[in-house]
Amino acid sequence: MVKQKLIIIGGVAAGMSAAAKARRISPDSDIIVYTEDEHISYAGCGLPYFIGGKVHEREDLFARSIADFAQQNIMVKPLCRVEEIRPEKGKVFIRDKTDHLTMEDQFDRLIIATGARSFVPPIGGIELPGVFSLRTVSDSLEIKNFLQQNTPMRVSIVGGGYIGLEMAENFQEMGCQVSIIERAPHIIPNMDPDMADIVQHYLATKGISVYTGTSVTGFVGENLVKGVSTDRGDIPADFVLLAIGVLPNSELAAESGIELGVKNAIRINDKAETNLTNIYAAGDCATTVNLITGNEVYIPLGTTANKQGKVAGENAGGGNASFKGVIGTGIARVMEMEVSRTGLSENECKALDIHYLSKQIQSKTAAHYCPASKGIHLKLIIDQDTRRLIGAQIVGFAGAAMRIDMLATAITMGATVEQLLDMDLAYSPPFSPVWDPVLVALNQF
Amino acid sequence: MVKQKLIIIGGVAAGMSAAAKARRISPDSDIIVYTEDEHISYAGCGLPYFIGGKVHEREDLFARSIADFAQQNIMVKPLCRVEEIRPEKGKVFIRDKTDHLTMEDQFDRLIIATGARSFVPPIGGIELPGVFSLRTVSDSLEIKNFLQQNTPMRVSIVGGGYIGLEMAENFQEMGCQVSIIERAPHIIPNMDPDMADIVQHYLATKGISVYTGTSVTGFVGENLVKGVSTDRGDIPADFVLLAIGVLPNSELAAESGIELGVKNAIRINDKAETNLTNIYAAGDCATTVNLITGNEVYIPLGTTANKQGKVAGENAGGGNASFKGVIGTGIARVMEMEVSRTGLSENECKALDIHYLSKQIQSKTAAHYCPASKGIHLKLIIDQDTRRLIGAQIVGFAGAAMRIDMLATAITMGATVEQLLDMDLAYSPPFSPVWDPVLVALNQF
Repeated sequence: MVKQKLIIIGGVAAGMSAAAKARRISPDSDIIVYTEDEHISYAGCGLPYFIGGKVHEREDLFARSIADFAQQNIMVKPLCRVEEIRPEKGKVFIRDKTDHLTMEDQFDRLIIATGARSFVPPIGGIELPGVFSLRTVSDSLEIKNFLQQNTPMRVSIVGGGYIGLEMAENFQEMGCQVSIIERAPHIIPNMDPDMADIVQHYLATKGISVYTGTSVTGFVGENLVKGVSTDRGDIPADFVLLAIGVLPNSELAAESGIELGVKNAIRINDKAETNLTNIYAAGDCATTVNLITGNEVYIPLGTTANKQGKVAGENAGGGNASFKGVIGTGIARVMEMEVSRTGLSENECKALDIHYLSKQIQSKTAAHYCPASKGIHLKLIIDQDTRRLIGAQIVGFAGAAMRIDMLATAITMGATVEQLLDMDLAYSPPFSPVWDPVLVALNQF
Repeated sequence: MVKQKLIIIGGVAAGMSAAAKARRISPDSDIIVYTEDEHISYAGCGLPYFIGGKVHEREDLFARSIADFAQQNIMVKPLCRVEEIRPEKGKVFIRDKTDHLTMEDQFDRLIIATGARSFVPPIGGIELPGVFSLRTVSDSLEIKNFLQQNTPMRVSIVGGGYIGLEMAENFQEMGCQVSIIERAPHIIPNMDPDMADIVQHYLATKGISVYTGTSVTGFVGENLVKGVSTDRGDIPADFVLLAIGVLPNSELAAESGIELGVKNAIRINDKAETNLTNIYAAGDCATTVNLITGNEVYIPLGTTANKQGKVAGENAGGGNASFKGVIGTGIARVMEMEVSRTGLSENECKALDIHYLSKQIQSKTAAHYCPASKGIHLKLIIDQDTRRLIGAQIVGFAGAAMRIDMLATAITMGATVEQLLDMDLAYSPPFSPVWDPVLVALNQF
């Protein structure tokens, strides 16, 4: 058999998972990874904690180095931007960002794992020093550098999603006065308003100013940002972080005839295959499927990137793996408060015209007489016809949010209220009240 | 319709859950609860923490009072021991423990929720002051009283199960020198030795002496216990706690012709019915079913008691509820270490001749760079033929043990390794590494 050559574009979660898996499946193939970034295989989700100083060393963010991969006979080429794919010829054209020279390379199979970039709206003042977004290790180093030189006191975070919340915590611990500006009527737009309001109230008690229903129209300042202009007035700020979502890096794929799907992400099937033979895509540049609705969705997350990358790597290496999709599980912590969600929200049910029932309860994470006993708000959503669980949202303190994994498992396995009420869940006073909050909520249906 | 009369024997978890549910189902019936105990509706699992002083007030242990139940028109008669049931006549005979008078009462339907008692072996010195067992609020008050008057320094706990571990924590925090004596080759007999050994090693580093494979033969002392005699020598002790399991209080039922099952517990079906019409049983006096094997089992736990009690109350009140059974989920904390298990252990698989595969991994509860990142050991057991998950055991630190609920849900729903590998579990650095320990373990199969 002729030696196969696999080219991977992108060196973070999906790309490097694909490379590692392809190597295990196909020990003799050539594997080369081109990435325009300087850094590879890093924990993007750890960046807020790196900026906040909880991750002490930059090295702690890296899972594996270029040298580690070289030992596995995987060649990684950093600072190399793939500028063109010619699928019919099995060729890619690469510009080396150090010497600006262009080279070409030949592949038998190709995996596109180009990730996503921060959405940066084209509004006035966006180029001002002091206005940042956070996506890459390089972004985080620039931010840390700015913070050291300017020690901003007033920080405005545009966007009240998970990253916005995590950054609010980290900036406040640095002693900054923090505001969050969210265009939607409530923060954490993928949760329902009743649950998000609890978080919003908590943030207020912690001294964080939250402006919801507020659109940013521009940034004030001359040589340095001095404030955020909104449709409801100016908010002073010495530092602005944009955390309003990401866009898939799919232009390269689209230009070479690869089909895009929802939100312009690269459309792949459960084998991570694109519409072109021998070309795969995975991670934050690609679509996936919502397993509850069957709809194509774009939910770029590190865990999905790892799983899709593995599947792409296995299949490109000659195997036969599949990744069926997601149900929209998410989790975050902001100071002491934990937030998680899975499945469909009420808002999503309404949009999909699903006949649903929803209940929200308040309980404790442990027996009321235990020091570990903290508040938990739990919302469950069921399909009224099948009585299957289809959604869950949690807001609470220590030990609250991770209960979402049990609920995600129940949703994926199609569990009904009646099956769940009989579930043999763990009970001991330091871990749960004798009626676990999940059972208390189920008892409402 | 003639007014129905429901008599319930027993006033803790199963009995009072039954009473409350029967009242909701059947607003007009007479409901009377006889209990020989002085206390009702208390949190038995909280007693170790009450002795340890973490539960400050005795009242914190009580969910609801006799007066609370009276408001629901449920009459509770404490210190009233039912001494005889005459099923064919629908009568019970009761001795009032305050005036020693006997009375009789008439029922249409009867629920037996007599609970269990500590197993106290007939060995020399067992009656010595300073030798205790812990089951009821009264036991705990006697122990607290003894501790205040005698301030024992050396405490021996006979039995290395969950209660033994919880009491070891509480006694050590009181400044006692604690030893645990376990007859089995390892502590926590319902876990496998490889997992139990990790706990045993931890206890040793915390200064707790653990004697496994050691049988207690008697107790030393004249007016007060001075030590524990074992087949491997004497162990000095000023206080001994027996925590070697419980026996179902099923004699009353057996004498009236009610069928017993495994371990002499009252045999009930999924409707909580005994073999006699209109007589139900629930809780620690009754059997249940292991949902994985289909076998009748006796696993007395507070959560099961609540669920069975609810079903008994609903059905005795004219409803039609069922409780299918358990999978053996258990959880405990000892100092900082958390322990949990569900489904079948390797030992159980061997005994049942199940064709199984088992893998054990070590991972972290959060991203390695997070302060919350602690060690977790996870063992998964699958059926080799169906590749379904059938067992899980966890030993670790903060945030480790509650992952068992997700695994219990997976086992109950019949999830395979492949289904679980695709599961959309929550990920954010403070809660999990990017590959959750559960996924890491699944990847080994």
